Amino acid sequence: MSVKLSQPQSGLASLLDQFKACRLHTEKICAPLEMEDYVPQPIVDVSPPKWHLAHTTWFFEQFLLSKFITGYRVYDPDFAYLFNSYYNNAGERVLRPNRGLMSRPPVREVMAYRAHVTEKVMDFIMSGEASKEALDIVLLGINHEQQHQELLVYDIKYILGHQPTFPAYGDAFATQPEHQEQQWLGMDEGVYEIGFAGEGFCYDNERGQHRVFLEPYQISNKLVTNGAYMEFIDSGAYRDFNLWHADGWDFVQNHRLRAPLYWHHTAGEWKQYTFNGLVPVDPNLPVQHLSFYEAYAFAEWKGVRLPTEFEWEAASPHFAWGQLWEWTGSAYLPYPGFQKAPGALGEYNGKFMVNQHVLRGSSSATPKGHSRNSYRNFFAPPSRWIFSGIRLAQSL
Amino acid sequence: MSVKLSQPQSGLASLLDQFKACRLHTEKICAPLEMEDYVPQPIVDVSPPKWHLAHTTWFFEQFLLSKFITGYRVYDPDFAYLFNSYYNNAGERVLRPNRGLMSRPPVREVMAYRAHVTEKVMDFIMSGEASKEALDIVLLGINHEQQHQELLVYDIKYILGHQPTFPAYGDAFATQPEHQEQQWLGMDEGVYEIGFAGEGFCYDNERGQHRVFLEPYQISNKLVTNGAYMEFIDSGAYRDFNLWHADGWDFVQNHRLRAPLYWHHTAGEWKQYTFNGLVPVDPNLPVQHLSFYEAYAFAEWKGVRLPTEFEWEAASPHFAWGQLWEWTGSAYLPYPGFQKAPGALGEYNGKFMVNQHVLRGSSSATPKGHSRNSYRNFFAPPSRWIFSGIRLAQSL
Amino acid sequence: MSVKLSQPQSGLASLLDQFKACRLHTEKICAPLEMEDYVPQPIVDVSPPKWHLAHTTWFFEQFLLSKFITGYRVYDPDFAYLFNSYYNNAGERVLRPNRGLMSRPPVREVMAYRAHVTEKVMDFIMSGEASKEALDIVLLGINHEQQHQELLVYDIKYILGHQPTFPAYGDAFATQPEHQEQQWLGMDEGVYEIGFAGEGFCYDNERGQHRVFLEPYQISNKLVTNGAYMEFIDSGAYRDFNLWHADGWDFVQNHRLRAPLYWHHTAGEWKQYTFNGLVPVDPNLPVQHLSFYEAYAFAEWKGVRLPTEFEWEAASPHFAWGQLWEWTGSAYLPYPGFQKAPGALGEYNGKFMVNQHVLRGSSSATPKGHSRNSYRNFFAPPSRWIFSGIRLAQSL
Amino acid sequence: MSVKLSQPQSGLASLLDQFKACRLHTEKICAPLEMEDYVPQPIVDVSPPKWHLAHTTWFFEQFLLSKFITGYRVYDPDFAYLFNSYYNNAGERVLRPNRGLMSRPPVREVMAYRAHVTEKVMDFIMSGEASKEALDIVLLGINHEQQHQELLVYDIKYILGHQPTFPAYGDAFATQPEHQEQQWLGMDEGVYEIGFAGEGFCYDNERGQHRVFLEPYQISNKLVTNGAYMEFIDSGAYRDFNLWHADGWDFVQNHRLRAPLYWHHTAGEWKQYTFNGLVPVDPNLPVQHLSFYEAYAFAEWKGVRLPTEFEWEAASPHFAWGQLWEWTGSAYLPYPGFQKAPGALGEYNGKFMVNQHVLRGSSSATPKGHSRNSYRNFFAPPSRWIFSGIRLAQSL
Repeated sequence: MSVKLSQPQSGLASLLDQFKACRLHTEKICAPLEMEDYVPQPIVDVSPPKWHLAHTTWFFEQFLLSKFITGYRVYDPDFAYLFNSYYNNAGERVLRPNRGLMSRPPVREVMAYRAHVTEKVMDFIMSGEASKEALDIVLLGINHEQQHQELLVYDIKYILGHQPTFPAYGDAFATQPEHQEQQWLGMDEGVYEIGFAGEGFCYDNERGQHRVFLEPYQISNKLVTNGAYMEFIDSGAYRDFNLWHADGWDFVQNHRLRAPLYWHHTAGEWKQYTFNGLVPVDPNLPVQHLSFYEAYAFAEWKGVRLPTEFEWEAASPHFAWGQLWEWTGSAYLPYPGFQKAPGALGEYNGKFMVNQHVLRGSSSATPKGHSRNSYRNFFAPPSRWIFSGIRLAQSL
Repeated sequence: MSVKLSQPQSGLASLLDQFKACRLHTEKICAPLEMEDYVPQPIVDVSPPKWHLAHTTWFFEQFLLSKFITGYRVYDPDFAYLFNSYYNNAGERVLRPNRGLMSRPPVREVMAYRAHVTEKVMDFIMSGEASKEALDIVLLGINHEQQHQELLVYDIKYILGHQPTFPAYGDAFATQPEHQEQQWLGMDEGVYEIGFAGEGFCYDNERGQHRVFLEPYQISNKLVTNGAYMEFIDSGAYRDFNLWHADGWDFVQNHRLRAPLYWHHTAGEWKQYTFNGLVPVDPNLPVQHLSFYEAYAFAEWKGVRLPTEFEWEAASPHFAWGQLWEWTGSAYLPYPGFQKAPGALGEYNGKFMVNQHVLRGSSSATPKGHSRNSYRNFFAPPSRWIFSGIRLAQSL
Repeated sequence: MSVKLSQPQSGLASLLDQFKACRLHTEKICAPLEMEDYVPQPIVDVSPPKWHLAHTTWFFEQFLLSKFITGYRVYDPDFAYLFNSYYNNAGERVLRPNRGLMSRPPVREVMAYRAHVTEKVMDFIMSGEASKEALDIVLLGINHEQQHQELLVYDIKYILGHQPTFPAYGDAFATQPEHQEQQWLGMDEGVYEIGFAGEGFCYDNERGQHRVFLEPYQISNKLVTNGAYMEFIDSGAYRDFNLWHADGWDFVQNHRLRAPLYWHHTAGEWKQYTFNGLVPVDPNLPVQHLSFYEAYAFAEWKGVRLPTEFEWEAASPHFAWGQLWEWTGSAYLPYPGFQKAPGALGEYNGKFMVNQHVLRGSSSATPKGHSRNSYRNFFAPPSRWIFSGIRLAQSL
Repeated sequence: MSVKLSQPQSGLASLLDQFKACRLHTEKICAPLEMEDYVPQPIVDVSPPKWHLAHTTWFFEQFLLSKFITGYRVYDPDFAYLFNSYYNNAGERVLRPNRGLMSRPPVREVMAYRAHVTEKVMDFIMSGEASKEALDIVLLGINHEQQHQELLVYDIKYILGHQPTFPAYGDAFATQPEHQEQQWLGMDEGVYEIGFAGEGFCYDNERGQHRVFLEPYQISNKLVTNGAYMEFIDSGAYRDFNLWHADGWDFVQNHRLRAPLYWHHTAGEWKQYTFNGLVPVDPNLPVQHLSFYEAYAFAEWKGVRLPTEFEWEAASPHFAWGQLWEWTGSAYLPYPGFQKAPGALGEYNGKFMVNQHVLRGSSSATPKGHSRNSYRNFFAPPSRWIFSGIRLAQSL
């Protein structure tokens, strides 16, 4: 992966702090879990928490310690096979749908593995012998682990939210009401600069700053709320094929969808699984856990549309964002001049640039320091377990 | 479907000629078939020739005759159920995967249905009582049937090409050698006008002429040839995951691909099913029958890329095109200000604007008069039975 | 296949007559078809009529002409690949689910192939040079073609019965009302001789005559009627899991069954597709087109059971049989001392002796001369397109 | 379930001891597990250990405590939904394939549930107020839990044996070498009594003692060994379709089988996963973990056959049995006069009497006191994770 990296100005000590904080944060997210919660993989998209703990550790071992420390002995040779995600260049691996079958190593051994690698990386950072290239990998590893922290939150919610008993996790990762009045922010036609232009870390898919011409448009100052979405449901939208893509309509039919993920209609009322258990749907909160198909259909129903990722980025200084990832109308494609890094890190982003849609912004589950308005998140259109929402736009 | 239509200046007589020629051409494409060839549906994408003959007829009956002729009695009430393709607004229909099970009505009855509707439409055109709106539907129906003529060619090739006996169809729809020397045409950065701007017919997805900023790029003056593609195969490209999208690699693995569709490696030689039967692969012909994944991987292997659909359109006056549809790097998305028509005709294009990639140009199977450089063809990335090829581009 | 064969006493002329009559009968069954009806394979179990015509011909060519006539040149070397059914020993073949894709050779060529082979076999029979072994193969080939005649009837009914237009085929293969009063025939306990013991043709699976001890039982003198089966439906039996095998309940749920195959509930009435089109269900006709699961559930509902195949055979001289194949409670297993023939003909019966249930009797579609009370028909429990019915039994 | 039950003569105290020993034994089987091992369900056939612990407890609560103790309050109303296996009469339940997703309740709560129910049942037994019918349910519950103890062993082996690290479980459930010389035991023709005839517990499927006529046969005094099975493999048997049922051949092809489950060919040697980890295959041990298809094919290769379940039962006093369940040639069908009990317990055996084959004997994982020569075990033909082996027979 070709990333533009630069060490924070305060140098190694700051990097060390970032690293330690990052490692601790992952473990803190898991703290409320029962041991048994670390194991299941209810759907292919969802990985067991244990797997995230180990995979983020393997990433540092594989791409940093093994590469830059002469004579480094891997902690356990089996772990590369067990905890590689999708890096073909890093060798064979457990097939993704089989992650939930791996009861071994137990969590306690994974935690020992984490502690071992954490210490080795800290020693390496503080040794003063790490090259610029190696320190860039540390920074990349931190960002990588932050991405997994967010996935970990999604996956824990999915695992707990699919227990028939709807167990609570605790107060965390909640969104806030969108109380502001709906306004349309007008944007002028013209050529805009798109892509990462600052100092500091960014992913390769944000680079290749380039110019995009935008026709005039308006964009909403707020996210669509549960209340508005309930009107959409009540209007019969999940039964009206005219609002949907052909693929979206198949998706709705095949899965018999009638509401966002985690919504349950019981005793005449919409309830929603949250980290505090099953509670009535709050109409003022932003609607969450939608597929791209549902976001698109909602916009159709309103007679407007989703913004493109370029419209979103150009207008982003003018509205508040960060409660939920916002589906855009843009497919995930390379920017002009996009270049993959050689080797395994080149598999980080580029090979996913087909059949995915871009989300912009960040969510209540995004780790601090991991968001910027050039960030390009992406998921397949049917994804609903992510923290996704809707912001509307329209052409003029 | 909201289309910009205008009758040819020579008026009704000219429209009548166009209509008659179109109807005859469909039947001429089928002339070399055995009766049995009209029936099978070997894969979901491929429709039986009989179905195309009937569906294009139903389109005129459903959207023209039934709507604009008072008291028109449909030829057979079952036919709407049998021959509707995907228009939810036009009622229930045979599920797409079941088209190959419909041995009834036999071809002879379908031909009688065609003759009946053809005559009724001709009478209607010449009656002088057809409104502008109705005549626009005639023109749309002609363009619709032309699209099916091209699909009919693809589908016939698939049906015959999957007989163990590789029967010949006859001389037709062949491509020509790409003898010109490879050159890179340079294009300047700047704002370009994109979309249909002329008189005459176009589809709704080409409209909304708008401005796009293009960074400087180069585009090839010729299509990639079989000879060049054989080098790609010989290099081991179908076994090198680094060249492929993640989805593309899965596709290659799951289907055990090692060459374009219709290629067979026998007795140490690459052969290819063509409409003249199984023949040795000609290295000078443009390579054909590739998925988007293969087109992308070839470009990766060359160290360049596919053009975007905007780059293609902007540069198209400077090179010859029309042998094969050319995969672009662009996902199929709406232009700014895209509007669907109300009712069934609004289902023509818009609902497919997700999970598809754009192809530009035209092919040896495209009917005369059905190509223009703003035409946006689209298929799902795995599609290989279409007449698709590769033109390369690169950023500067 | 190890079969006990003996030529009819009247010798070669009689065999020739049998052969000619058999070949003509197959073609007569197809006479009412449209050319297009010869092609589709709507489900894997159902083969295209064209395939039956060719396969029964290939059987004579492969196992008789090629083997016993020195220097015989096969009619077309591709046909072995196209028209082998399941004989691994006879080489590669078109996969069963792909039979409906083979539009070539057209019916006209298949008929020419039939005529060619028919003539060659007739010449061979009358040449006087055929060995006993070869003449036994002729007899086997006739019986083989008779089995396919019955399947051909099933498959034609399935193809026509699944056209939305329910076309008629004509008067043929109809069953008669079961007007006789219900009686229970008592059978004594004791050792019974089971299996084929006569002269003439039988299949290898009927041989190994052996003794079976039967506890005392009663068996019904008549088949279950549509009228009785409607009571079963009306009682809610398709929704009562207690009546069904676990596999049967899954089958009912997954396919949302509520009546026999070909029954349609329209306008408050049960109708049934027959060879004369869609007609009201006649309560006096024997109920037909049931899976083993439904036959079992009906018996459960009545508080009785299906007879075993041994009970059926022992009692068969005492009741009329032959309208429908009768599901027994017996799994299809080898008789003691069962021996497969070496080579391809050994694949005829033995390899299917698992996961199948035995049906006894014969049906209105069984060719004349092809039934005997030792005949063991067998199908998988979910099969419904066969001409199957129910006779009840009970222990004392 | 209609079972013939009689309390052990020593009365309630003895029943109490049996009950306590049974409950403890289940927990002892789980003792070597890590907490994480209790959760996964790697294939549908294999249930999580946690599920077995809870389900056997629910059985006592549902069919004993709730039914016979007035005012009994269920421990947790959710548990019936979570831990019902297949009793439709006992209400809705978690779908079988989803058992591995249920991380909650954690093991610790399941153990508390066990303790609670164990105590309540003990109190009930010793109260002196339990009816004969209730005490029969206790006995049935013990036998039910014993069956699950054996499945628990299979499932633990599957879970551990599919970890890439092949962890050891410990010394337990091992088989012994079959050192005796191969002999054929001859059995005379005649009528034999089949089915359970003793005092004490048996399942409903063993009842209906009845007479069966057996033709003369021979049966082997020993199980087929790994050594003999390696010869079968080396002969190319997994590639020779003539040895297999048609369904068996599909099974072998689809799963690319070439050896029993848990065998791995590494570094030119066959190794086998056992409870002590991965070890070289011992040629003197009985071959284990075979599907019915493999057992059948081995017999075919030897030119002999599997015994029927009646032959097995009649000859069983003359040979040692109990290392492995022995596949018979018999499909699992009801005995004459078989009667299901009303209600949920009637679902215990009868509804599985189709598409299954009978195994006779017992295995090293069968709990003490749970085997008898009339016991009819049954599994679907492809089952390989069970402790199955081969004993040969032949007709004379």
